[in-house]
Amino acid sequence: MQISELARRTGVPVATVKYYLREGLLPSGELTGATRARYDEAHVERLRLVRALLGPGGLSVATARSVLAAVDAPGTAVHEALGAAHRALPGVGPGDPPDLDRARAVLARRGWRVAEDSPALRALAAALAALEAAGYPPGDDLLDRYAEAAGRIGEQDVAEVPAGSLPEAVRFVVVNTVLLEPVLLALRRLAQEDASGRRFSGG
Amino acid sequence: MQISELARRTGVPVATVKYYLREGLLPSGELTGATRARYDEAHVERLRLVRALLGPGGLSVATARSVLAAVDAPGTAVHEALGAAHRALPGVGPGDPPDLDRARAVLARRGWRVAEDSPALRALAAALAALEAAGYPPGDDLLDRYAEAAGRIGEQDVAEVPAGSLPEAVRFVVVNTVLLEPVLLALRRLAQEDASGRRFSGG
Repeated sequence: MQISELARRTGVPVATVKYYLREGLLPSGELTGATRARYDEAHVERLRLVRALLGPGGLSVATARSVLAAVDAPGTAVHEALGAAHRALPGVGPGDPPDLDRARAVLARRGWRVAEDSPALRALAAALAALEAAGYPPGDDLLDRYAEAAGRIGEQDVAEVPAGSLPEAVRFVVVNTVLLEPVLLALRRLAQEDASGRRFSGG
Repeated sequence: MQISELARRTGVPVATVKYYLREGLLPSGELTGATRARYDEAHVERLRLVRALLGPGGLSVATARSVLAAVDAPGTAVHEALGAAHRALPGVGPGDPPDLDRARAVLARRGWRVAEDSPALRALAAALAALEAAGYPPGDDLLDRYAEAAGRIGEQDVAEVPAGSLPEAVRFVVVNTVLLEPVLLALRRLAQEDASGRRFSGG
């Protein structure tokens, strides 16, 4: 199909499709003339993925490019792709490494094993430091409750990764890691709103 | 104390403290001369909160200002403050209202009651639409599992709100809503990493 058809199929303006092509988020089409290229179903699918990552996924163009690189890297094994995705995703920025001991203690109580340089471990340590700095150091029981809830869904996330095709498994891991995060946060806020209504406004 | 002492106590450079004063994130000190002002313990505490919101909280200056306004609004009731905080926090941006039916169905299955215009409801609907667009429409069983985990911690979050002082309750709600989100996301990724290691790389 031509670029106009690709735009129509996905509801993305032609100018935006061209922008994604320039930014390397969308692979070039097959050249069929000096200024014409042909696109296929893989482009439709990729364009939908790009829109999802940049929209409610909330990623920047640069971060989306890193995440897509993790999806596309040939021969990546699933466990390594998960690590690559976690490193590409928004998390804790550069800066002094936070004190990791408290974060490691939470993991040790659950028996979780993660890499020494896990970006999520740094992110957890930084988040705990922020709570401390704000005057709300979280207790172990609160952290254990959060870890239990997170563990339940994280375990299930990984159990659902399709085992057959490696590229499909990698894509599944990256997409679900990014796009289920806003689902989880929205559901926690909705649960808070419901509980707050029952506790503080009698209904 | 003078501004230099405030900076020393909190580890924030004087120029940055002045920037927060200009941006309205920190209330002015008590004027003690043409160019001098006196600050107190409330400023130390507020400055730590501002740093936590802008740092690992990941908020923009404008969003932090809205969140702090929700904290400070006199006479705000707790349930209304939670709503104000949720509206101020990063979530789904402007745009076409997403189809809310699927999101409402998840809530209905758990018996949660939330406002018709709840920003978290819109955020959930937008996140579900993004998963659909990316080719991974989530099944009801996955959503119910996420809702159960989120419900467990959201319920407990609200149970822990201190009942005595209203301003303190409001502050607690806002800080915990913002600053526990990165904790939850980091823990889910760590649980994924642990489970992925066991499933895909033999331990």
